[in-house]
Amino acid sequence: MDKGHSDLLDGILARAPRSIAKAMSRAEIGAPHDRALFAKIYQRAGQAHTIGLTGVPGSGKSTMVRALAQKFRASGRTVGIVAIDPSSPFSGGAILGDRVRMGELAGDDGVFIRSMATRGSLGGLTRGCMEAVDILDAAGFDVILIETVGVGQDEVDIARAALSVVVVSAPGLGDDIQAIKAGVLEIADIHAVSKCDRKEAEKTVAELNGMLTIGLSGRNRQGWPVRVIATSAQTGQGIDDLVKNLEDHQQHLETSGERTTRQHEIAEMRVLKAAEEIARERVITAHENVRDSAFENVRKRTVDPYSAALELIKSS
Amino acid sequence: MDKGHSDLLDGILARAPRSIAKAMSRAEIGAPHDRALFAKIYQRAGQAHTIGLTGVPGSGKSTMVRALAQKFRASGRTVGIVAIDPSSPFSGGAILGDRVRMGELAGDDGVFIRSMATRGSLGGLTRGCMEAVDILDAAGFDVILIETVGVGQDEVDIARAALSVVVVSAPGLGDDIQAIKAGVLEIADIHAVSKCDRKEAEKTVAELNGMLTIGLSGRNRQGWPVRVIATSAQTGQGIDDLVKNLEDHQQHLETSGERTTRQHEIAEMRVLKAAEEIARERVITAHENVRDSAFENVRKRTVDPYSAALELIKSS
Repeated sequence: MDKGHSDLLDGILARAPRSIAKAMSRAEIGAPHDRALFAKIYQRAGQAHTIGLTGVPGSGKSTMVRALAQKFRASGRTVGIVAIDPSSPFSGGAILGDRVRMGELAGDDGVFIRSMATRGSLGGLTRGCMEAVDILDAAGFDVILIETVGVGQDEVDIARAALSVVVVSAPGLGDDIQAIKAGVLEIADIHAVSKCDRKEAEKTVAELNGMLTIGLSGRNRQGWPVRVIATSAQTGQGIDDLVKNLEDHQQHLETSGERTTRQHEIAEMRVLKAAEEIARERVITAHENVRDSAFENVRKRTVDPYSAALELIKSS
Repeated sequence: MDKGHSDLLDGILARAPRSIAKAMSRAEIGAPHDRALFAKIYQRAGQAHTIGLTGVPGSGKSTMVRALAQKFRASGRTVGIVAIDPSSPFSGGAILGDRVRMGELAGDDGVFIRSMATRGSLGGLTRGCMEAVDILDAAGFDVILIETVGVGQDEVDIARAALSVVVVSAPGLGDDIQAIKAGVLEIADIHAVSKCDRKEAEKTVAELNGMLTIGLSGRNRQGWPVRVIATSAQTGQGIDDLVKNLEDHQQHLETSGERTTRQHEIAEMRVLKAAEEIARERVITAHENVRDSAFENVRKRTVDPYSAALELIKSS
């Protein structure tokens, strides 16, 4: 590891905001020469309680993240936040102003907030996000909140890479949206229903409870009772309960041995994602002539994509 | 290629619904022993006009797909439809009953409709979907409509793998949803606004037109005028115009040389996706002891995910 990297690592371990921010930008870029840095950061991480919050657009995730962060801070814990923004595959720019919306937490040096843009078609979102979490983890933040939209495989994977997963539902969303949500309901350790100052919320809570009764609690096979918690950012209802339930879950992970099981699953996922990235890189960095003629053959359909990929991986 | 595969290929080329359905199921499973089959299917495809329709949940994509399919059929063209369902990573089952909703087209043998489930965390959705399109293409369907939710990298990639992309917007969706949508707006060759019997639709049409005026037309650098088309499934408004615009776009792809450019981009994407799959497979099929100890080292954070992946790919 070179001097620049070791200075940056020292800064992160000292929880210096500028070092953290700089490393986050590098995680987002994902350049090969920063790999040694992220390997070191990874090895220094692993202590934080990582919490994934996911739900469909409009479910009130950001508001809940802010409320949770305030509660954790009030109890003396430091909080890191990584929010994945849906954004343009072209501009790469973040659209939602999470840093702005989180304004009231921004002056607090026990909180670090980062919005990450989703990436272009060459992947890297999952890796970048997980490395951002590693940075906050290595920096010693006690709790790390990871907010993702619960649609799309990568986004769901990012939520599943947390030790505890909260699925956020809002009352009264359309049918199409509920159908989308079905894909993520099963990864919930806790269901949080937002906007429970609204009357329709009762129905949503009842539906989720009904679903749990018939045994749709996919990931939880270790005796953890998945609960549905009614919350309201308006009235403050349920946020304490949610924090308490998250603490109970953290405790449960320890005592049941489930923490190790999940860490193993997360490790497996990260290795697979890294393998994908290695393969993409090999294709991209294959000798230009070889690569371009492979693409051209696939375009002309004289060669299929799988055979071409196999050749390119071999040649590099 | 074995006898089973060559019989299946013959069935597909003869457009036998049972052969097509069987091959679709195999595309969904993605077993290595079917690779030779899909290589052959790929080589026989490439003639269809593939059209991706994408938009946020609730935008009315399915209704539009059905309306388009009816119009294309009325003009004598055969139509294949692949709809990607948001569904459980656990059950793997489709949730939306597209085949049921498409009911009125179901008795027509010039139409083939397939809903595909999204897959587990090990990927394969994009490959499976693209192979499903190859099957319909090789079977000689004139037009192939690919319906995906416009959220999530894989889903956007699937839409971008079509020769023409229609982004569907509905009037009056929430802010959060509009933000998500921003990520896909730029891949549009045509914007279709649904539900234009509603008054709020005017605003949506005006906003999209405004966006186009300031030059946000990412993918279209070849002189194709991206248009906003107001449609209504209720009144039938705009559907003929949309079909006409799609035909114009197909013509434009030919005359401008853009068809070749896009096919090249699509080929590149498919090779990269195949490379990812090869890498995942290598990790998964590495010697059990080697693989498990790699995962365990990553879990214990003595090794980082990238280094572990590199070792596993090398060892297999």
